Amino acid sequence: MVNIAVLGYGTVGSGVVEVINTNHDIVNKRAGQEINVKRVLDLREFPGDPVENILTHDFEDILNDDDISVVVEVMGGVEPAYTFVKKCLLAGKSVATSNKELVAVHGPELIKIAREGNINFFFEASAGGGIPVIRPLNTSITADDVTEITGILNGTTNYILTKMDKEGADYATVLKQAQELGYAERNPEADVEGGDACRKIAILTSLVYGKNLDYNRIHMEGITRITTDDFKYADKMGYSVKLVGTTRKTDGKLYSYVAPVMLPHDNPLAKIDDVYNGILVHGNALDDVMFYGKGAGKLPTASAVVSDVIDAVKNAGRHVPIIWEDEELEMGTFADSESRFFVRTDEKDEAAIKAVFGDVEYVDSDLDEKAFVTAVITEGEFEACCNKIGVKSALRVLD
Amino acid sequence: MVNIAVLGYGTVGSGVVEVINTNHDIVNKRAGQEINVKRVLDLREFPGDPVENILTHDFEDILNDDDISVVVEVMGGVEPAYTFVKKCLLAGKSVATSNKELVAVHGPELIKIAREGNINFFFEASAGGGIPVIRPLNTSITADDVTEITGILNGTTNYILTKMDKEGADYATVLKQAQELGYAERNPEADVEGGDACRKIAILTSLVYGKNLDYNRIHMEGITRITTDDFKYADKMGYSVKLVGTTRKTDGKLYSYVAPVMLPHDNPLAKIDDVYNGILVHGNALDDVMFYGKGAGKLPTASAVVSDVIDAVKNAGRHVPIIWEDEELEMGTFADSESRFFVRTDEKDEAAIKAVFGDVEYVDSDLDEKAFVTAVITEGEFEACCNKIGVKSALRVLD
Repeated sequence: MVNIAVLGYGTVGSGVVEVINTNHDIVNKRAGQEINVKRVLDLREFPGDPVENILTHDFEDILNDDDISVVVEVMGGVEPAYTFVKKCLLAGKSVATSNKELVAVHGPELIKIAREGNINFFFEASAGGGIPVIRPLNTSITADDVTEITGILNGTTNYILTKMDKEGADYATVLKQAQELGYAERNPEADVEGGDACRKIAILTSLVYGKNLDYNRIHMEGITRITTDDFKYADKMGYSVKLVGTTRKTDGKLYSYVAPVMLPHDNPLAKIDDVYNGILVHGNALDDVMFYGKGAGKLPTASAVVSDVIDAVKNAGRHVPIIWEDEELEMGTFADSESRFFVRTDEKDEAAIKAVFGDVEYVDSDLDEKAFVTAVITEGEFEACCNKIGVKSALRVLD
Repeated sequence: MVNIAVLGYGTVGSGVVEVINTNHDIVNKRAGQEINVKRVLDLREFPGDPVENILTHDFEDILNDDDISVVVEVMGGVEPAYTFVKKCLLAGKSVATSNKELVAVHGPELIKIAREGNINFFFEASAGGGIPVIRPLNTSITADDVTEITGILNGTTNYILTKMDKEGADYATVLKQAQELGYAERNPEADVEGGDACRKIAILTSLVYGKNLDYNRIHMEGITRITTDDFKYADKMGYSVKLVGTTRKTDGKLYSYVAPVMLPHDNPLAKIDDVYNGILVHGNALDDVMFYGKGAGKLPTASAVVSDVIDAVKNAGRHVPIIWEDEELEMGTFADSESRFFVRTDEKDEAAIKAVFGDVEYVDSDLDEKAFVTAVITEGEFEACCNKIGVKSALRVLD
């Protein structure tokens, strides 16, 4: 029997206990032995709950219990999660976490401590929720020169964009509905401004390339300025509008950003709707591979955390190597990143537009404006153009 | 440095050598040491080819070479692949194979030999080609009670069905085009009759449930009787027609089959077109997860094989557990398997149809026939109905 502890009895934490209890035969068979939740840490009381008798408010009860060999951290946020996880690892306990913030900020250090202690620090649920993508990136997509990793990594914004697209409703209305349904937080900033997706693409990129990408270095734009008119143009052009986190290799240099983009309908990510997430990986041998599923939610996320616990139990006494060094990943300058841009402007003189943007492809417009797609230009060039002609809205076009 | 050998220098074998050579820095970094292709076995000569000097016609040159610790088997077919692989494993060499036939027939025995020898038998490319699905099923989707695994597992038939759907061309015409383009074999039977998909769903099902599913026990229907009229009905109904291999759990019993089915457009598999493959897994915690990518082709398949080689090198001296016992998996009787059925019949008397099939949903028809969808009934009930009323064509409807 292996004893584990769960730090945090919120949505995911209670899901972890539920999955271990409901699927105990399967979980124990896969782990090779019985997994027992010995302790749950939370500041709150849970009278009448099955964990009532194993609940503690004192982290030391877990840290100092030598019978507990695997710890699940599902509290979220950097502190006190970081302090707790680090202490557990230093005490020789393996850790499984769903905490993207913790992993994005302290991933390489915690992996290093696990390596030195011959234990494991696993974080399958930290990007893509229930979707198995972290372990496949670490152990399956290992023979390829990966030239792109692009993900729809945030279910809240994908839900909002899907509703705006299908129902023609505007952003504020759909956000309010999403909040009422519990799909969006009362303070939705981390989702709608791109911060959540940003941490996740930082984690995925670091894993693919083996060095650290600090999420603060990633250019980030949210979805708050997308309008129903943008969707009308996209439909007409055969594109979907999706918030993606993406890292691409161009001429040997890596460029990352988080932003709403136009994706052509034949891109498999374009068809991912509602709260679903998808991660597309392009390798020079593999071609396109995509992982699809629920990027959030109590049980899908808990399933990924429990799979990490099982892997930690199976690999007791052995560190499973994860290549994610502390050294910062070399990135191209964002100003050199290239795309085509979809542009809407009040400037109606095509000669004036050509003088600034060069040859562009116009899109039929029912509005009193011009809409067009540029040739492939750099971010720097695009910004320079925008300083010359007023641009009402713009979206990168991902081909 | 680790020396490997490649058995078979056909499409996949030459791809394996190409991936190892082209991506050597990445491959060696992931493996933790240099991977060197020391020997290639093939009966043919390859004058001028890079492998000319390491080519052998004699398997014993590889078997008896103690410097070779990992062997890639990409010859295809059961023999001599089975004899060669077994000898390699018994000699203490780990094996990576793309050979679905070998894995479907001898998987549990070869895994057992690997376990006893503390080496590895890996087969990521045996189902889903380049798509990482075997390793995720074995190491990631471990906490769930899996209630469904359904895959579009054959690129040739998916290409044919996609063309028939989009171009309105008939089966014989599209098959001929596919053969000219090299997407279908001159003798297409293994693809179009479902045998290839059948072996793959047998492998995936065995891995999910940990016991052996003999592919001969799987009910199998091919795509040769699908007509353009079937597609017209499907379009009208909001469905796609896809050849799937599927295993579903109903009331605790497992039912498998390979057959063309109607999939609603909101099923993520419905959107997988051309030569792409997709595997959908439904777990009681995870909900739906899908893996998507190229199910065949030289480099995608080779990429998966090389990822297996890397994993074998990383795990030298350690057997990575794969739960796939020799014991036959308990399956429900196919006659008890339930679906709705889409039916086309020359019987035009609705009262007569109702007397046999009960209440059905009629689909508008431009043809001189009746078309309808039944309620959920068993295969046995459906067959009994067909014995009473002549059915021109029928497709299961997967909801």
